[in-house]
Amino acid sequence: MLITKLHTPEGVKDYLPEECALKSEIEKNVSRVFESFGYRRITSPTFEYNDVFANMGGVKDRRTYKFLDRDGSLLVLRPDMTPAIARIAATAYSEKDIPLRFSYIENMFRSNENYQGKLREFTQAGIELIGVNSIDADAEVLAVAIDSLLSAGVEDFKIDLGHAQFLSSIIEDADTDEKTKVLVQQNIINKNYAAVNELAEKIENENIRYILRELPFLIGGSSVIERVRGRVKDGAAAYALDYLSRLYGIMKGIGLSRYISFDLGVIGSMDYYTGIIFRGYAKGTGSSILDGGRYDNMVVKFGADMPAVGFSIKINDIMHTRIYSANQIEHILVVYSEDSRTAAFKLAEKLRAEGSIAELCINGGDTSDAKAKGINKIIYVDATGIREAE
Amino acid sequence: MLITKLHTPEGVKDYLPEECALKSEIEKNVSRVFESFGYRRITSPTFEYNDVFANMGGVKDRRTYKFLDRDGSLLVLRPDMTPAIARIAATAYSEKDIPLRFSYIENMFRSNENYQGKLREFTQAGIELIGVNSIDADAEVLAVAIDSLLSAGVEDFKIDLGHAQFLSSIIEDADTDEKTKVLVQQNIINKNYAAVNELAEKIENENIRYILRELPFLIGGSSVIERVRGRVKDGAAAYALDYLSRLYGIMKGIGLSRYISFDLGVIGSMDYYTGIIFRGYAKGTGSSILDGGRYDNMVVKFGADMPAVGFSIKINDIMHTRIYSANQIEHILVVYSEDSRTAAFKLAEKLRAEGSIAELCINGGDTSDAKAKGINKIIYVDATGIREAE
Repeated sequence: MLITKLHTPEGVKDYLPEECALKSEIEKNVSRVFESFGYRRITSPTFEYNDVFANMGGVKDRRTYKFLDRDGSLLVLRPDMTPAIARIAATAYSEKDIPLRFSYIENMFRSNENYQGKLREFTQAGIELIGVNSIDADAEVLAVAIDSLLSAGVEDFKIDLGHAQFLSSIIEDADTDEKTKVLVQQNIINKNYAAVNELAEKIENENIRYILRELPFLIGGSSVIERVRGRVKDGAAAYALDYLSRLYGIMKGIGLSRYISFDLGVIGSMDYYTGIIFRGYAKGTGSSILDGGRYDNMVVKFGADMPAVGFSIKINDIMHTRIYSANQIEHILVVYSEDSRTAAFKLAEKLRAEGSIAELCINGGDTSDAKAKGINKIIYVDATGIREAE
Repeated sequence: MLITKLHTPEGVKDYLPEECALKSEIEKNVSRVFESFGYRRITSPTFEYNDVFANMGGVKDRRTYKFLDRDGSLLVLRPDMTPAIARIAATAYSEKDIPLRFSYIENMFRSNENYQGKLREFTQAGIELIGVNSIDADAEVLAVAIDSLLSAGVEDFKIDLGHAQFLSSIIEDADTDEKTKVLVQQNIINKNYAAVNELAEKIENENIRYILRELPFLIGGSSVIERVRGRVKDGAAAYALDYLSRLYGIMKGIGLSRYISFDLGVIGSMDYYTGIIFRGYAKGTGSSILDGGRYDNMVVKFGADMPAVGFSIKINDIMHTRIYSANQIEHILVVYSEDSRTAAFKLAEKLRAEGSIAELCINGGDTSDAKAKGINKIIYVDATGIREAE
């Protein structure tokens, strides 16, 4: 029987050797950074009960792949790693184990049309720092994010930093009805600033009106914070601004502030992030290649009240910013005659033990595509002995 | 809202740091062996059209996780890697690219009750050598299998080697009806040798009767082949025996025959394997930790007539044979006072660049669980300077 469906389903793909090697290299480098900061890798199942991921904010339920288990339970292909790690932290660990530092590199699944270049299966590498709500924890996680992108070979990037409490508090304090507040929030999420501008007309408070109108321009260096600081008296919004200033100061002290800019217009999904929110952008990419923030209200949903901060890197998007260069391992083709098979197999084994790639030429001595395959040395083995050709 | 389902679904599991580290280490070592033989890693989607895996032999269709795509197509979580690689070989490559050497490390999904220690999501690492049907190709794949198990730290193992043509040809040549032949085959697959013995009564040919009765004992060194060789005149069964002898001779020549024994009772699923069949067993494990063989009739189902041979290692089962020993990287805890934060962050960054794990103590200087976490050095940073404690 011939198979007729020879392509892969929409939104998923094969990775042939070159692309797969680039992916592995990025994953290896990023893992090494995670490990060097004391983050330990964990793995969760590819599918879990839908309950773990539903109502978590961030990912809309209808955009996941769901199916029934034999016992009738609703299962879902993991759309996001953070709730799974929150579950593990709450169930396998306790107060005495904090701070918990976990890392992961896993595939995520979302069935929506336009997510991450239309990929419905994509790889995320990330970390979660659980159990500590402090500026040191936030600074550490930002440092890991920056070092990870550098290790992944992303040449030119910025981390846009904001705070969930800033805009939510501004909107909360606005002298207008609840319906308008919700509309303002939604239009900010959708980056529909014209609509925000229009809604701002209804607000009496001049400072709040100013901030809402200025939103698209509250992006850039630390001067952004100075521009609005005078218009925010006290409360959560002022705290958020001061917190961002202090955090920037720490990053400056450790020499990483050049990678950081501010975006006070970030709002995230309100029920997910509770403190800093950050997104990494590489030069020339429109969507973020890294997303993170503080989510102090998630682990408690699994029964343990632990604050947390973390981020994930979109490995597939990083791959687009990179060009694969073959590794420098010596790749040797061993060509042999049948009467010298044993000698050839043994020689190849010796070359491998010395760290080379030693490929046996098992197709009758045809070496025509050796160069295309990245082979940089050919060794001939026959009854007369062993000789090399470059 | 509190989540109530805090456990993972049946048959899938979390891997906490120690277990995950052992798994990563085995995967890394095995990958290195694959690469050293010239095998290049590829990746296929976690789910594909069900057609790719249905009717491939090996995995029964009802034991897979299936669900519908948005467009109504039937999708399945990959139960096996080989058909996916056969699809890729047939669609992305042509005759001029052979031999194709591919490797993979991926998770597979099967919903049956008792597969691989009841795990329904499990990891397989394997290779496929596509485009060559020769004894050299078979010998190479056996050598990769042996080197992989050695690199994975499996101390004491055997590869049981058989040939799909031996028993199928013996049964085919038996002077009995088709129904009896099918019954014989099924009872061999189920290892019900009492039933095979009984069915053998119906067969006139003394040699065939002898072989069927002896099946449970046709396991061991090369003497096994000598025992039955005289009872098999010619045809496919005789060819299979002679082929196994020659292959054993090659493995002996390259010093690997001590890992190989014979099992002439292997039968596999008839429509899957066409030549050698082999299974790896570690001392003390009842089920195989490695499965492989030649499958010359699979790639053609995807439209390109290419012979192939390969194997897969059950990584989870290998883990049971191993004890995790933490790696030897220096793991340093950096304890600091708030006024020395910048110095501490910078010191940690420097230690990481030198290859250590440098973990910042962000929970108020509490070092009580440092030893339990594998930390082997503590460095204190405060206004008076930097000092070390072992």
